[in-house]
Amino acid sequence: MQTRLALITPGPTPIPPQVEAALAEPLLHHRSPDFRALLTETLERLRGAFATDGEVLMFAGSGTTGMESAVCNLLSAGDRVVVATAGNFGERWVRICRAYGLDVEVVEHAWGEKLDPRRVAAVCDGARAVFVTHSETSTGVVHDVRALSEAVAASGALLVVDAVSSLGGVELATDAWGIDVVVAGSQKALMTPPGLAFAAVSERAWKAAAGARLPRFSLDWAAAREAQRAGNTAFTPPVTLVAGLRAALRLIDEHGMPAIWAHNRRMALAVREGVKALGLGLFSPDDESSAMVTAVRMPAGVDGQRVHATLRDRHGIVLAGGQGPLRGKIMRIGHMGWMSDFDMITALAGLELALIEHGHRPPSPGAGAARAIELFAKTAA
Amino acid sequence: MQTRLALITPGPTPIPPQVEAALAEPLLHHRSPDFRALLTETLERLRGAFATDGEVLMFAGSGTTGMESAVCNLLSAGDRVVVATAGNFGERWVRICRAYGLDVEVVEHAWGEKLDPRRVAAVCDGARAVFVTHSETSTGVVHDVRALSEAVAASGALLVVDAVSSLGGVELATDAWGIDVVVAGSQKALMTPPGLAFAAVSERAWKAAAGARLPRFSLDWAAAREAQRAGNTAFTPPVTLVAGLRAALRLIDEHGMPAIWAHNRRMALAVREGVKALGLGLFSPDDESSAMVTAVRMPAGVDGQRVHATLRDRHGIVLAGGQGPLRGKIMRIGHMGWMSDFDMITALAGLELALIEHGHRPPSPGAGAARAIELFAKTAA
Repeated sequence: MQTRLALITPGPTPIPPQVEAALAEPLLHHRSPDFRALLTETLERLRGAFATDGEVLMFAGSGTTGMESAVCNLLSAGDRVVVATAGNFGERWVRICRAYGLDVEVVEHAWGEKLDPRRVAAVCDGARAVFVTHSETSTGVVHDVRALSEAVAASGALLVVDAVSSLGGVELATDAWGIDVVVAGSQKALMTPPGLAFAAVSERAWKAAAGARLPRFSLDWAAAREAQRAGNTAFTPPVTLVAGLRAALRLIDEHGMPAIWAHNRRMALAVREGVKALGLGLFSPDDESSAMVTAVRMPAGVDGQRVHATLRDRHGIVLAGGQGPLRGKIMRIGHMGWMSDFDMITALAGLELALIEHGHRPPSPGAGAARAIELFAKTAA
Repeated sequence: MQTRLALITPGPTPIPPQVEAALAEPLLHHRSPDFRALLTETLERLRGAFATDGEVLMFAGSGTTGMESAVCNLLSAGDRVVVATAGNFGERWVRICRAYGLDVEVVEHAWGEKLDPRRVAAVCDGARAVFVTHSETSTGVVHDVRALSEAVAASGALLVVDAVSSLGGVELATDAWGIDVVVAGSQKALMTPPGLAFAAVSERAWKAAAGARLPRFSLDWAAAREAQRAGNTAFTPPVTLVAGLRAALRLIDEHGMPAIWAHNRRMALAVREGVKALGLGLFSPDDESSAMVTAVRMPAGVDGQRVHATLRDRHGIVLAGGQGPLRGKIMRIGHMGWMSDFDMITALAGLELALIEHGHRPPSPGAGAARAIELFAKTAA
């Protein structure tokens, strides 16, 4: 009997019971005072989560929807833009920009590398916008967007950051770091089911949007801002998901962001050390910059896709496999959102059991879980 | 004490308990066999709801998202298109087409009129696409899209139908009526919270899409089709809403579409007759073509917006007010989705009570509800 499915992935992440309860509340009409109050509180708390005094816009959609909104609201056909890539989600910026007919200069890094601010800054002159990823979920690397922002500043190009999988899980100070646009989604560190996208927009970005000629309608930022200022949305919003998000943001505000970041760093450290104790290598950096997801190298001759299936079908544990060139080669463990120390121990124990079934033996039984427990005992929760 | 809020609007509509239960099921990972089975069944049932053997594509978003997907996938900048309007949602097609730089010919009808197939056909030659509305929710008119399809056929233009508020509530035979694209949303007759959009795409529309140059990324039909054929979605889907939709479609399939249409017609008849018994006039047609929503004229000197607020704040009944030029002048009662005869009696009783508070007295107490009960007694449920 499979009793419980453990979702220990970099998103969707588990939903806290308070959020589940809010999701199950009776449906509100989206043009009602009750919804207006719900939306207003949610947007105010989102500003806190983005660390911005500016507008945070909300759209129905996936994280990619938020990314696309930045491209079509900021630019005109033929504009020169720079995209820095080091994995699947960096490459998504390239695909979106090309779909919109932009002149794209790609600063390509190998999957797993950290974006190099000097390489990016070297090609920014004359670019209208620079697109980067905060947490590159495909590799486990959290890029240093603060350094990227400083490096790009002199060029005058707008800096647009994909924080879909990082917002709320690791520090990101939109205003203080001088980032023009930050996009995010509901289903990662924000602990809500997928279906909502966000864009935090700076004054400089609003000016650019006013002159941008790429076509857009349901993703039009100005229409969204006008509606939101009246406590409304431009089009029918996913009402239940907004109710869930408010509950999640209340939880986040109760704990405080710094405590959540510390919790994630602590879980990440235990996973890294546990993985090494299992005799496995890390693909993601062996430091705090892999704060959201740890990418574990599969032992030689072991197919990660098969390990992934064993974990899911035999042990009820959902981790994430590798994407693109990393398919079958790595396994990714999420440590963000509503996850606990014991989820990390479960992930390490499950990984050990599944690898044994695929012929890889750890140095000693339970070595990964034991190392994690040792670390958790040393660092107060 | 306000004990219960009754949502008797043309969407969002009340959620059946089976759908609420499905919405509350544990979150599935969107790249898992469980989700693949959920998506596959849902798409298959959607094909039934659209009465098509072709592909029905699913997107995260509102009904407008589905409409926008048709514009950006079928056309290239400067293409000539025809839009027939007779209310708020017809005008939305105009705004979307203009946002994308199309050459738009508007066949304007007064709000509340039925679209005239001859007027539309007269200007279709040389147009690449014709955009119409099925149920014009702002006025209560269900347009005769079958006649529109026949009238437009000779021109060779693609016919695109907004069925956001009609699909599942009134007959719409995508294939049999020769409609090229039908777009819909989850939150009306499909009895699911808002957040999902759909597009049924004919072979002819796929050919047009292959040559269409307007930019699109997350709404790209070809990417959606490729992913769906692999039991997947191109981008993270609103997983919980898909689970809810499957439950709703199972309910619909259990009852059978014709029985649901008959139920809606029966509720609509009782509302029309009840409204007249209250001494009020109908804005929507006094026949079966107002199958989804009845628009009631407010008595002279009575502000519909104030009646709307009284109904909501004093009686816990949410109806819909008038939009655009009809603001304050009409009240709209929905009869679709998970609504019963007794919801209609509630709407009529509430309307009577609220109007009395605003100075309008019915011919005799309870006249509207009494007339509805009389009709319900005569026609078997």
